[in-house]
Amino acid sequence: MEPRPAAPRPRLCDSLGADQTPSASTPNAARAELGRRAPAVAAVLPAGGSGERMGIPTPKQFCPVLERPLISYTLQALERVCWIKDIVVAVTGENMDAMKGIIQKYQHQRISLVEAGVTRHRSIFNGLKALAEDQPDSKLSKPEVVIIHDAVRPFVEEDVLLKVVTAAKECGCSDYDLEFGTECLHLALKYGHIKAKLVEGSPDLWKVTYKRDLYAAESIIKERISQHICLVMDTKDENHVGHRLEEVLKDELNHVKVTSRLPCHTGRDLDQIMSEQCYSYVCVNVMTSDFEEIRKLVNMLEESNLSILYPVVVISVYFLDYKSVPFDQKMENLMQIREYAKEVKKRNILLCGLLIYYPQDEQKLQESLRQGATIIATLIKERNSGLVGQILVA
Amino acid sequence: MEPRPAAPRPRLCDSLGADQTPSASTPNAARAELGRRAPAVAAVLPAGGSGERMGIPTPKQFCPVLERPLISYTLQALERVCWIKDIVVAVTGENMDAMKGIIQKYQHQRISLVEAGVTRHRSIFNGLKALAEDQPDSKLSKPEVVIIHDAVRPFVEEDVLLKVVTAAKECGCSDYDLEFGTECLHLALKYGHIKAKLVEGSPDLWKVTYKRDLYAAESIIKERISQHICLVMDTKDENHVGHRLEEVLKDELNHVKVTSRLPCHTGRDLDQIMSEQCYSYVCVNVMTSDFEEIRKLVNMLEESNLSILYPVVVISVYFLDYKSVPFDQKMENLMQIREYAKEVKKRNILLCGLLIYYPQDEQKLQESLRQGATIIATLIKERNSGLVGQILVA
Repeated sequence: MEPRPAAPRPRLCDSLGADQTPSASTPNAARAELGRRAPAVAAVLPAGGSGERMGIPTPKQFCPVLERPLISYTLQALERVCWIKDIVVAVTGENMDAMKGIIQKYQHQRISLVEAGVTRHRSIFNGLKALAEDQPDSKLSKPEVVIIHDAVRPFVEEDVLLKVVTAAKECGCSDYDLEFGTECLHLALKYGHIKAKLVEGSPDLWKVTYKRDLYAAESIIKERISQHICLVMDTKDENHVGHRLEEVLKDELNHVKVTSRLPCHTGRDLDQIMSEQCYSYVCVNVMTSDFEEIRKLVNMLEESNLSILYPVVVISVYFLDYKSVPFDQKMENLMQIREYAKEVKKRNILLCGLLIYYPQDEQKLQESLRQGATIIATLIKERNSGLVGQILVA
Repeated sequence: MEPRPAAPRPRLCDSLGADQTPSASTPNAARAELGRRAPAVAAVLPAGGSGERMGIPTPKQFCPVLERPLISYTLQALERVCWIKDIVVAVTGENMDAMKGIIQKYQHQRISLVEAGVTRHRSIFNGLKALAEDQPDSKLSKPEVVIIHDAVRPFVEEDVLLKVVTAAKECGCSDYDLEFGTECLHLALKYGHIKAKLVEGSPDLWKVTYKRDLYAAESIIKERISQHICLVMDTKDENHVGHRLEEVLKDELNHVKVTSRLPCHTGRDLDQIMSEQCYSYVCVNVMTSDFEEIRKLVNMLEESNLSILYPVVVISVYFLDYKSVPFDQKMENLMQIREYAKEVKKRNILLCGLLIYYPQDEQKLQESLRQGATIIATLIKERNSGLVGQILVA
């Protein structure tokens, strides 16, 4: 047996989603408690695994979900929790550069990297050591509590982390055995010198283990970022067909928040929507067939940095009135969207056109609008880059 | 405590996917053994659950996956195993008519329905009782072994079922307690009068419990039915652009089997492809712009009954040579596909058009073909009915 490494000192707990014992403290009370006493909290992510059970060569923490590596979602979940001061990720030497690239590309904050060990526990140890060292040139501050979190549990919520920290402070976990490859809690109970506590998790805290879990993660993320659709209208006219489209969309997607905004002179309004993390925009062009409004919207989206983390869908809707412009001419005009869509795709903005027939017959119009809403719902739900630049017809 | 109901007599085993103890017998040996002695095997599916953990009102076994209820996939998995003679499904009274509708719509065979009990074990008991009764008017034959299978484990494979049956014959499970809501194996061990054996499952045998599992199931099914693409060419010319498209598709989808067939005078060839359960067809129309070939293909698909169980994707590809026909004219012609697509959608056939630019410039042509292949891959992978009748442009 290898000599046991000198154990670091911060309190330790595991945010595994076990649901045997509900925590006594409510999240709100815990948050208030944490606010008063403000312990220094850090997180360590062992991410040195090879993902053998996936049946694919890429380690699962680096598998793409909506073209972004899974671990980036986990980092995002941790870094939005403001009271986690440092996040230490343990990766193997061969993945070190890839990990640096991920941190840069997705602009992750408060992340430090250490080299992973040969086992999960060795990796955790390396992370703890980096936090425990009082080196003058270290950016890391010595924490009172360290959360150990799997790199492949991307959906962890702040309240679970809060429960874990509160439990750690109560139980004061202070040392554990690094040499056995079993689960932390099992070790803690076996060696008995520490109080161990199982904190209630939620079904969302599940671990991405098999390929089917990657599929599930992708669907969950797509669903989450499709919960809010903003219609950008180029007219104030309340009686216009754009507002009827809005009503049909609300009817079709009754679990989704559908709001509408005017684009001109209301930049601040759209800024607000973007800051609320709305990832789906439908530009209703009633007055013009040009792309000016689309360009303005895309520029605002770029400035907002919204598309760094998730693909943003933009659908440019036009209405086809047979009397004014013939179909082929309108279509030929709109084909210009293709080149522009290719360009903005590079910035993770997925642009499509949608041409909705506008017949005089009331029933036919309703049918057109309903089909338009179905196409909009499909494009937003699927968020597939393969259809970028297409002009769909309803 | 309720009086214990008189227990039925067939041997009983559970195909839960536990993986602690690998079965000693290999599937092939077991299959040969089963072939020699041919015990009468039946299956009981308790399907009376309410699916509370899903967080949705529909019980999970009736949740739609690709618009078909989950339980239909499980029935399909069992009924393709020819040595399972009868499949008894226990459903609640209120779902009885829905279940009858499912059996009829998806043409399930060898299925009998019984009323579910208030617990899983009661439901199993009702299923066993139906099998054990020697009533003259019963279509059911008394089995030697009964497989108990969860209605929400749709991906069970024949080899696992075979292991379960073999283990049941070895252990001879003969009686168990119906009054306790714990898992069968636990009961079997507790009451100790029977030999219990844990049969190794596979990760695919997992149970659909949460909403994320439905997402995963849908993605797995979509992936499975997209593993084979058949290109139907309307020309024998080996140098034609259709064959170049085939090469680009093979290149783009390197895990997918891509084959090509001639449609005219080769109906038998296509019959063969359909009997191999190919659910994705790309009709490459080089010689004409009409829909004759598409109509023939759709008719063959309808006769094959292929689209009863899964949505079949048909993509009608046309090439646009600027010199011969202008874009708007070609597009106007193709718009007729929309009405036809609506019609065939009713039969679960998802038809789209794809217009591929055919420029003289070699590099541009390659780019068009590559974009065409991306669109084909997207439509086949997503299999979304919202885009039916659209004409996409590459």
